[in-house]
Amino acid sequence: MTTSNDIPLASHPNNRAAHHRTDEAWLQNAIGADNVLVFLMQKGQPLVAANGQNLVWLGPEVAKITPQGEQIFLGEDKAGAPIFAVDMDPTFKLEGSLLQGSGDFTDMRAAASGLSPMEANLASTARSLLEWHRNHPFCAKCGAKSEVTEAGWKRVCPSCGAEHFPRTDPVAIMLAVKDDKCLLGRQAGWPAGFWSALAGFVEPGETLEQAAARELEEEAGIKADPASAEYLFCQPWPFPSSLMVGIILEAQTTEVSVEQDELEAARWITRDEARQVLAGTHPDIYAPPPMAVAHHILKAWAERDS
Amino acid sequence: MTTSNDIPLASHPNNRAAHHRTDEAWLQNAIGADNVLVFLMQKGQPLVAANGQNLVWLGPEVAKITPQGEQIFLGEDKAGAPIFAVDMDPTFKLEGSLLQGSGDFTDMRAAASGLSPMEANLASTARSLLEWHRNHPFCAKCGAKSEVTEAGWKRVCPSCGAEHFPRTDPVAIMLAVKDDKCLLGRQAGWPAGFWSALAGFVEPGETLEQAAARELEEEAGIKADPASAEYLFCQPWPFPSSLMVGIILEAQTTEVSVEQDELEAARWITRDEARQVLAGTHPDIYAPPPMAVAHHILKAWAERDS
Repeated sequence: MTTSNDIPLASHPNNRAAHHRTDEAWLQNAIGADNVLVFLMQKGQPLVAANGQNLVWLGPEVAKITPQGEQIFLGEDKAGAPIFAVDMDPTFKLEGSLLQGSGDFTDMRAAASGLSPMEANLASTARSLLEWHRNHPFCAKCGAKSEVTEAGWKRVCPSCGAEHFPRTDPVAIMLAVKDDKCLLGRQAGWPAGFWSALAGFVEPGETLEQAAARELEEEAGIKADPASAEYLFCQPWPFPSSLMVGIILEAQTTEVSVEQDELEAARWITRDEARQVLAGTHPDIYAPPPMAVAHHILKAWAERDS
Repeated sequence: MTTSNDIPLASHPNNRAAHHRTDEAWLQNAIGADNVLVFLMQKGQPLVAANGQNLVWLGPEVAKITPQGEQIFLGEDKAGAPIFAVDMDPTFKLEGSLLQGSGDFTDMRAAASGLSPMEANLASTARSLLEWHRNHPFCAKCGAKSEVTEAGWKRVCPSCGAEHFPRTDPVAIMLAVKDDKCLLGRQAGWPAGFWSALAGFVEPGETLEQAAARELEEEAGIKADPASAEYLFCQPWPFPSSLMVGIILEAQTTEVSVEQDELEAARWITRDEARQVLAGTHPDIYAPPPMAVAHHILKAWAERDS
């Protein structure tokens, strides 16, 4: 059975060594240590080797690559080597630098499908944190400029003392099923033939299951009892910083009525059709890519007997 | 089997009628309509009737109760009546007002255990949103004062145009189990005899299951494979705005080593002891209250055969 560990962008391995984040002396030493492992980010994009399969890894010589922005401490590898992501200033150019010819800063979605699970996770974690810093430089409590601390995992306000932590926004992404059929939807802006699971942000005061049922009704007019929801697995999604929670819901109704601001259309397909979609043989629907949790939700349901 | 629907503070019923949030004319009309249902909040506390079992409900006469702060639209009841929470200015006093003698603004935790599930959910949803407004009056992107919109469900920045949505922070709250025992922990500041499940915020770049395993190891030195995690149910928790996700994890080790900043102690108890804890007959441990999801996690495990 598929678990969250098997979903792309999940954490591999799991040693974030978070106790080091508050140890400024340790961090300063670690980034210059002989065994340090550093990769670069710029504008939310990781520096990927020309083969598309690896990040470009640097050692302590990263200090020579400037101008730099934030340094994010991401944990330790199995041998205890510290891992950092360094955000490069937008003015930095690979051409003419020591890294000329090493690879390219690459769109995160494209990069993630080529990288190993561990490298994809490290780059997407760094992306989440750096986008959060980029979009939250001020204190939401008092309006003053806040400062990065704890190796990139926190901001503090020097004016009012407020502490700010990275956001992780839970999203319910659900496959409504009924009578051996499941419901797919598509947004107006999507490529022709692309259909996926419905999804929406979890709001204050509701559970994951209730959010799934509410979104299903709001977007497609289909009713479901939240108590019928089955949790499958989840995926950290760095665009910008969601936690996609995969749910299968038993629908109570079948008549589709789409909310045009959200969806262009929604349609029921049979389990056989779902298998065709995943096999790439469906006449007019292609599946969400394996990097997306929607792919794995559809797969989990399609592979069941009935 | 217990589902998220059965957990205190979950949403009952589920009609948030979110499409009305953007309709300013509808909202203005609704708050003054004959059938409107309004309760009051002040400093995060709902106004609860003297019997402790009901919110104090007002109709359109709420307009006479001033000075008011935000009006939060919470949805519609089964008959289609609009429901609002109105935040009262900190200077408002019940004494001498039209509401003198009707009840008291009551600590949310205390109030929640007396109110019906629906009223507890409405008050705690309002509390989450109001605390978010109170703590995020400025735009984190540019530092300007931001403005409430969409009936309390969004803030927009008039200076840079950034949109801000309420936070919902996922928390993994886990019961580690091994050999018919489970692990409880206690923090130094807790009352004597109080032990609970371990918990921690989900970070960017990890799944719920990975967060549970990481926190277990960080706080208690116990190792577990995230793939062993079993999702149980979740609870919206308005202190200030978390989503508590209940998980059972199979521990791989038993030797406890607590991180003193987080826990004072952790201990293994047998399933029989867990049943005693829940029955109130354990000699030196009492259970988390039924309002807390930890209570229901312990109960779900204790009630299993083995």
